[in-house]
Amino acid sequence: MQIAITGGGGFLASMLVRRLLDQGVAGRAVTRIVAIDLAPCPVADPRVQSIVSDICDADALARAIAPDTDAIVHLAAVVSGQAEADFDLGMRVNVDATRLLLERARALGTRPRVVFTSSVAAFGGPLPERVADDTRALPQSSYGVQKVIGELLVGDYTRKGYIDGITVRVPTISVRPGAPNKAASSFASGIIREPLAGIEAVCPVSTEMRMWLQSPDRAIDNLVHALGLDGELLGCDRTVNLPGLSVSVGAMIQALREAAGQEAAARIRYERDPAIERIVASWPNDFTAERALKLGFVADRDYLSIVRAHMARSGLAAQAIGTPRQ
Amino acid sequence: MQIAITGGGGFLASMLVRRLLDQGVAGRAVTRIVAIDLAPCPVADPRVQSIVSDICDADALARAIAPDTDAIVHLAAVVSGQAEADFDLGMRVNVDATRLLLERARALGTRPRVVFTSSVAAFGGPLPERVADDTRALPQSSYGVQKVIGELLVGDYTRKGYIDGITVRVPTISVRPGAPNKAASSFASGIIREPLAGIEAVCPVSTEMRMWLQSPDRAIDNLVHALGLDGELLGCDRTVNLPGLSVSVGAMIQALREAAGQEAAARIRYERDPAIERIVASWPNDFTAERALKLGFVADRDYLSIVRAHMARSGLAAQAIGTPRQ
Repeated sequence: MQIAITGGGGFLASMLVRRLLDQGVAGRAVTRIVAIDLAPCPVADPRVQSIVSDICDADALARAIAPDTDAIVHLAAVVSGQAEADFDLGMRVNVDATRLLLERARALGTRPRVVFTSSVAAFGGPLPERVADDTRALPQSSYGVQKVIGELLVGDYTRKGYIDGITVRVPTISVRPGAPNKAASSFASGIIREPLAGIEAVCPVSTEMRMWLQSPDRAIDNLVHALGLDGELLGCDRTVNLPGLSVSVGAMIQALREAAGQEAAARIRYERDPAIERIVASWPNDFTAERALKLGFVADRDYLSIVRAHMARSGLAAQAIGTPRQ
Repeated sequence: MQIAITGGGGFLASMLVRRLLDQGVAGRAVTRIVAIDLAPCPVADPRVQSIVSDICDADALARAIAPDTDAIVHLAAVVSGQAEADFDLGMRVNVDATRLLLERARALGTRPRVVFTSSVAAFGGPLPERVADDTRALPQSSYGVQKVIGELLVGDYTRKGYIDGITVRVPTISVRPGAPNKAASSFASGIIREPLAGIEAVCPVSTEMRMWLQSPDRAIDNLVHALGLDGELLGCDRTVNLPGLSVSVGAMIQALREAAGQEAAARIRYERDPAIERIVASWPNDFTAERALKLGFVADRDYLSIVRAHMARSGLAAQAIGTPRQ
């Protein structure tokens, strides 16, 4: 199986590449991965080829998505905070490049599987306490609007028989490894990751604020599941709200305290940022995700285990200062 | 008040132009209308200027939408049947040209009112018996997908302060004057208009099929209302499901029989077309439209009065053969 991944230089793509090489997709071995991004894919493996390019470049995209490409995972995006600050850049990358990608996939004539990642930012405005599978998308950020446009196109390209597409609306990922980014939700990883690394972190929102979260490990589980899923099971709605955990920022910090002690938690400075707070507050923080669970997508058990998994991955488990409770 | 109208050569635009010149918008006189379309606006009035151009032409669009343009009514579109038959044309006109228009409106820097016409085709898939104001858009046609993309952009351009936009989801218009077009719903006018003109018409769907209808007169009432409406009243959702009538095709034909006699109704030939039936059946046929009614948008009284209004407009009232019941 040959897979193209956009945004292949990012942390999620690296984890996905490793998992695909190790475990394949639904029993099929992955023999080749082409990763296209502004940065090369950091996974060193003869089966991995990096194309270092803007995904807005149709020629580069055509090299990444070749006639023998079986599936495409479209992760590349201008993130929420940046798409809000630079509307035109968001439209160019999140809408125009997604269209280029879909057109390229269509031109293959092989109806490849396309997995597109959307977001909780698809939702906004007045929301039910828990977002249901048929809750309408009413995005209140440019990022959300651009993602929903991608969802609609993936749905229509699939309906027309040009591709075999699935959109997964991914919860906010926490704890992302790596550096802070321009996503409005960047703090949802930063307030755990930075204190654990001995660095001060800023919490820009109220600790009462709840978020809909997923660990990187479960996100990878779900992307691989989407790659192997029978598309027919999705019927006329190719967009799936992934399962996740509804956790308040206060509870996230409490989990950090439990896993790594008060010393770590004390590295968080509280400084509210109205711009970030407004965007994040517009997102839903709880979902039923019934359809996704029925389709075999998975959620994390609890947030404490997410923090511990991050510590284990970062070689921090031994340094834990607190008294872990079971 | 100066208004630009795309699709200005069409029947709805002509009616709108006449109404705007006669009655203005919310007490303001309309001093100038620029109509841009492939055909010139047939209204002969010194206040009306036609620009004969594809709306995909950015230069022509920039001439139509000038710094002194107060409002834009965006009616031009590739209709449902054609957008399904020619995907690329639909994307180019319904998505790309809508973006050009929004960019041009944004470039003015005056935050003009933009009224965008969407459609019942925004909906599809499993639907409640009556579409509510918060029912999700899950379009099952390329036309519907392209219209929802336009809705999302109008919403985001408004949220960003680039325009002051309102999208109205217009019911299927019946009875359209003029000739049949490539809309899947074209028959919803044809089965009334053609028999009244002594011409045979084809009914391509089951007479059981229900549709969500609005007369051209009420559609114009609603477009003018949208032009003058205080946008703040719409909150974070700039898309409104217009009120209409839920009528079965059989009841439409019965109204024709009542208004013009069995001789007229006998001019309908029944020949089902699966392609048309599939598209039309994917649209909802009943709405609550509570929000629109509260905002002052209007519906027709009943379908018989729609048929009679069409006959009156066409100078056919005197020729009515049937025995009108009150």
